[in-house]
Amino acid sequence: MSSSKVIRKELNLVKKLIKNEIIEEKTISDLYKYIFNSNGKRLRAKLSLISSSLNKRKNHKRLKLAAVIELLHTATLIHDDVVDESQTRRGVKSVNNIWSNAHGVLIGDYIYSKAFILMVEIGETGILQELANATNDISKGELIQLDALHNTRIGIEDLKAISYFKTGRLFEASAKTGAILAGGDKSFVNNISNCAKYLGILFQIKDDLLDYSLDEKIIGKPVFQDMKEGKVTYPFYFAYNNSDKKNKEKLKSYLGKNKFNINSAYKLIDQLGGIIETEHLAFEYLEKAKKSANSIKNKHIKEEVLKLADSALYRKK
Amino acid sequence: MSSSKVIRKELNLVKKLIKNEIIEEKTISDLYKYIFNSNGKRLRAKLSLISSSLNKRKNHKRLKLAAVIELLHTATLIHDDVVDESQTRRGVKSVNNIWSNAHGVLIGDYIYSKAFILMVEIGETGILQELANATNDISKGELIQLDALHNTRIGIEDLKAISYFKTGRLFEASAKTGAILAGGDKSFVNNISNCAKYLGILFQIKDDLLDYSLDEKIIGKPVFQDMKEGKVTYPFYFAYNNSDKKNKEKLKSYLGKNKFNINSAYKLIDQLGGIIETEHLAFEYLEKAKKSANSIKNKHIKEEVLKLADSALYRKK
Repeated sequence: MSSSKVIRKELNLVKKLIKNEIIEEKTISDLYKYIFNSNGKRLRAKLSLISSSLNKRKNHKRLKLAAVIELLHTATLIHDDVVDESQTRRGVKSVNNIWSNAHGVLIGDYIYSKAFILMVEIGETGILQELANATNDISKGELIQLDALHNTRIGIEDLKAISYFKTGRLFEASAKTGAILAGGDKSFVNNISNCAKYLGILFQIKDDLLDYSLDEKIIGKPVFQDMKEGKVTYPFYFAYNNSDKKNKEKLKSYLGKNKFNINSAYKLIDQLGGIIETEHLAFEYLEKAKKSANSIKNKHIKEEVLKLADSALYRKK
Repeated sequence: MSSSKVIRKELNLVKKLIKNEIIEEKTISDLYKYIFNSNGKRLRAKLSLISSSLNKRKNHKRLKLAAVIELLHTATLIHDDVVDESQTRRGVKSVNNIWSNAHGVLIGDYIYSKAFILMVEIGETGILQELANATNDISKGELIQLDALHNTRIGIEDLKAISYFKTGRLFEASAKTGAILAGGDKSFVNNISNCAKYLGILFQIKDDLLDYSLDEKIIGKPVFQDMKEGKVTYPFYFAYNNSDKKNKEKLKSYLGKNKFNINSAYKLIDQLGGIIETEHLAFEYLEKAKKSANSIKNKHIKEEVLKLADSALYRKK
């Protein structure tokens, strides 16, 4: 079997493992089933499995770790939907939409603590440390982003910090904990962690770009949400900073508004270089990710992460 | 110095330890300061310190563990306030009120993961296991309670389960992890854990009773909140189940209503035995807690928990 096929098979085992953790209470199990039936890309779980495949002797723990990563990611998504008041997630209604904000908060906590239980079962201090720090950084990133709403003066370094904390950090932790579990040497741990970190930032930049799409159908979720929520992301940032005073006012007028002509908004952002400069930035991170990937000695693992890196940039949704 | 004085001194050290964990970002540090300036009773941290005082050789870890307990408790309070849409907490405005729901969700996550970091630093598997399970049970309890809203058919066993999960569970974990840290034998761990569990349930029953107070000023927080939020707690439960059809309808009409005459409501609940039966139940749990406390061999620790048990029942707020 090819490496990719093995990983696909393992991802299904991870899904089963999560399903088996569903508990008896009806609401919890309903929520759980609902959440894990929707098809995410499970990129972080994949990264974890690829990274830990360096040594498959601890196979059961490898699957458990990937399940932990998937649970942590899901918990943050559910809380994010409450924070952003999002109505949909992965093409279906969000938990806060179908149930309530209260359910979103509590089921997020429930899933997070479930991940914590499984982590303790794996029983490796280095993994616990990394995941504790990562989850703390993720919430820090979300708080920073929340307070940056409507802030057109935000700098590129702050934007990069947000992309790292909210997305790059868990990518990094997925690869790093996988590498620790597999007992990789320092250089393997560093190379795959860095690669995953850049890949996560790249993934976030691409997400920001996809939000500036003119066709909802292609990406399968509402577009121009960031602007509507008052979030300054890369396309807006570059356009705004390339802009004269008049266009700055125009751009500001879109920010946080629920309804506007998205064709005009897109045209303005595009004309001001917002799209192309974001694409350049994404490409920069692709190069960084590839550079780290190329330092990985294990050929199979190197190939797998290189594939992931390309798909992160060239995906349509 | 008396045991109580030592514990008081240690509680202040715990407060400092938490303060030192405040990080550089302005909002996070503002939120943090705001939250930990308000004066809670810090009962759980106290329980942890009493329990771990069996062996003071690990003094730094003892303080750290008490800080972890306090952080976990605070995280759940902040999320609860979002869930219940509460406007005040410990006599001051709640985080969701002064900032926003989004801040409440994220700062709760931030504090929870901070607790997780400190836990890993303590580095005892038994403690990690207990705290992972406890936090999972707490969120489970909150979810069960959420789905029991407006349910007048709820049984006494369900109510007890809710009291255990949402309050007794963290009391139990506070004492148990303290006992584990101190290297207590099986009987010490069991006795103090059980005592703490009953004490927590007692504490919750008393909280439910205090909510049915006629004078806000005495208890220092809004009264009749449970009824207004549609929560069936012990006083309502007993009254309802002692009631004829007509009064059942009357009681139902109060549930979930934002405004009603609290004097009439109190009178009805009281006449139907809601108050006295809840007081009896509280007394039952006080006896259970005392019985477990009396099995503790260490004299100082026994005395401290007995004092806590009495103060849990006879407090005015």
